[in-house]
Amino acid sequence: MPEPAPVSVSATLAADEAMARRRRAGEQVLPMTSGEIGLPVHPALRERLAAAVDENAYGPVPGGEALRAASAGYWERRGLGTDPALVVAGPGSKPLLFALLLAIGGDVVVPVPSWVSYAAQARLAGARPIAVPTLPGQGGVPDPERLREAVTAARAAGQHPRSVVVTVPDNPTGTIASPETVRHLAAAARRLDLVIVSDEIYRDLVYDPSASVESPARHAPERTVVTTGLTKNLALGGWRTGVARLPEGDLGRALYDRLVSIASQIWSSPTAPVQTAAAYAFGEPPEIIEHIAASRRLHETVARAVADRFTAAGATLAPVRATSYLYPSFEALRGHLARTHGILDGDGLARFLTERHGLGVLPASAFGESRQVLRIRAATSRLYGDTEERRWAALTAPDPLELPWIRAAVDRVGTVLASLADTASLSSSAQS
Amino acid sequence: MPEPAPVSVSATLAADEAMARRRRAGEQVLPMTSGEIGLPVHPALRERLAAAVDENAYGPVPGGEALRAASAGYWERRGLGTDPALVVAGPGSKPLLFALLLAIGGDVVVPVPSWVSYAAQARLAGARPIAVPTLPGQGGVPDPERLREAVTAARAAGQHPRSVVVTVPDNPTGTIASPETVRHLAAAARRLDLVIVSDEIYRDLVYDPSASVESPARHAPERTVVTTGLTKNLALGGWRTGVARLPEGDLGRALYDRLVSIASQIWSSPTAPVQTAAAYAFGEPPEIIEHIAASRRLHETVARAVADRFTAAGATLAPVRATSYLYPSFEALRGHLARTHGILDGDGLARFLTERHGLGVLPASAFGESRQVLRIRAATSRLYGDTEERRWAALTAPDPLELPWIRAAVDRVGTVLASLADTASLSSSAQS
Repeated sequence: MPEPAPVSVSATLAADEAMARRRRAGEQVLPMTSGEIGLPVHPALRERLAAAVDENAYGPVPGGEALRAASAGYWERRGLGTDPALVVAGPGSKPLLFALLLAIGGDVVVPVPSWVSYAAQARLAGARPIAVPTLPGQGGVPDPERLREAVTAARAAGQHPRSVVVTVPDNPTGTIASPETVRHLAAAARRLDLVIVSDEIYRDLVYDPSASVESPARHAPERTVVTTGLTKNLALGGWRTGVARLPEGDLGRALYDRLVSIASQIWSSPTAPVQTAAAYAFGEPPEIIEHIAASRRLHETVARAVADRFTAAGATLAPVRATSYLYPSFEALRGHLARTHGILDGDGLARFLTERHGLGVLPASAFGESRQVLRIRAATSRLYGDTEERRWAALTAPDPLELPWIRAAVDRVGTVLASLADTASLSSSAQS
Repeated sequence: MPEPAPVSVSATLAADEAMARRRRAGEQVLPMTSGEIGLPVHPALRERLAAAVDENAYGPVPGGEALRAASAGYWERRGLGTDPALVVAGPGSKPLLFALLLAIGGDVVVPVPSWVSYAAQARLAGARPIAVPTLPGQGGVPDPERLREAVTAARAAGQHPRSVVVTVPDNPTGTIASPETVRHLAAAARRLDLVIVSDEIYRDLVYDPSASVESPARHAPERTVVTTGLTKNLALGGWRTGVARLPEGDLGRALYDRLVSIASQIWSSPTAPVQTAAAYAFGEPPEIIEHIAASRRLHETVARAVADRFTAAGATLAPVRATSYLYPSFEALRGHLARTHGILDGDGLARFLTERHGLGVLPASAFGESRQVLRIRAATSRLYGDTEERRWAALTAPDPLELPWIRAAVDRVGTVLASLADTASLSSSAQS
């Protein structure tokens, strides 16, 4: 008999709504809580959706042929040959991830830190999340050595870990695990007989186009499920569209069947008109490629500028190489923050920034860390402007930091952090 | 540690896809498997969706204010005063029902027969479905007397039933439980301390506008959750939109919080552009009311005509009063079917009609009955034509049965049933 599901509201979505309420109440806030991408819909996708409004049939549970074939092409162009018959589309990669955990069964290894919903979904699926830390600069991939220890210990204690979640590139750290780390993770997962669930929704938001982004599907193809969606690269969170790529072979075929069964009972099929637009996007015509490239450049410029403000205030963070997330540590300021502001932990730091200064951020504890960890996650993807016009201007500006509203937002971050760290003199000397 | 989720693919969706494959292969098939409504999108809704394609933000987890307020108004016009703050919108009523079972916890009483997904969702949520038969002609509502017995027995056996699902009007029987039965059910649920989950997605498809359709929310307002959507009344299955109305009071507020938390972790928010169109629809402007009324008249005409063919062949069924479902029993023909066709049970009957004659129907076992039960469910809502043009013609025809493609479909049902029952002479004499 199941107890009512043990779950709290998604930290990112809850914080986002709190910021929206404060903004409506007239407060000046900088919403850096969620990874929502504040950029406009590309006109080609608007047109495809508008042209598909007649589509009102359910269609196949795993999505229509066009979307599945386009998704397969998307992965093939990234070195992952894909059978469209092993692609499952859903209303976002989030429900796909949840359904995958149900389909695999058993307990779930999640990296720490990691996205707020992996552990929550595991609990909803009746599993116990097993937390395994990542290595510095290797966000999203549990340290393979500690993975072995944790799984061995969990099995000895009667738990049944059957899967490990990885995020490449990573949320919340904005780092990309090295090919070597991914290879070791894949080898460990094989030895431990774990399914790898590889969340690659940030794959198109790697700043350096020549950077190698390794999927575990290259090294453990028989046991890796890859998920992605259009929420991040094309700012389509509100459209709710995601896809999963199941592995070839017996395991993959069995998982596919189970995933489709679960999808049929939970959500029936992905929204039909959105599928049509999503198929176009996954086909990656030139204007979509260019749009994503422009978004990526914008993310890089603004994320790095904000990262500089954190560094200037005395925080430390691994160089951000992808996404629009920063995960700075204020450990070096621990004594100062306690003495001057009464800030004792990550939760206190996030509260101080959010409630005192309207700088919406999330504490490390939202990502599975101890609340003692003096880190916060700041997402910079909502700083591009509040109107379509400003967002387009941000996308097309040679230097987005020269746009007054972006400059003002970045400066405000700098001012708040300077007051936090009492680095006003340092900050003003940097400006001179 | 959870085993992989015990689930099979939705019988309706699987059968629908099988029929679509056969049709693509050139076979002549009559798809009467799923409750998908084969009617066009109303132009006003097409326009609203097309005008909303810029909406790409997640928005609030329970849906935007416009949709929640419009849904509250929809219920108020049906005698259920509703606080918009207790409305949760989701990507279909199916995911809302699943999330509700997770939110309530415990085991779940489901009527027999009932929609294919209630029991499957209960199992996915880690619960055991407790089957309670309905009374003749009172489809969708477990017999209150047997509910008491079953819950008492289940509790004595260590199970923890916490909710009961009802469907008013009913799928698969097309009947409407009487106000008296609903009142008794509500009283029993209160005595047994069960939450009532009332699936009222067919509420707008009651043929007689003066018929009383009683929601358990009238009799046990403190413990009844009502769900509905636009899949049936407006043929928008592929748009994936549904809403839930939580009860006022402590239980309702707690359930609301849990439901929103679960939604935030499984699907984030309902598709934003669709919400805008759905809000318009739930506002029930005159052209939408008229469109639904036309759909209802069409369903009634065709469902009754097909019901007559079943009756002519010797099957029996309760008078259909709503939906586009028929649930005829072939018990009177049991000996004949066994001798002449080797049909021994409901599964065999469905297989014979579907595979031998291309008349896609589902066996009673798909609705939780024993496979011995010699019944099938036939949905008539896909017989209106294969093109937009024909579907519009069906909606506007003074007598849809005079349209040649509908006439041909109904006649084909009659011919197949006549051959099944060897009532060719009876059939031809009826025509003379």
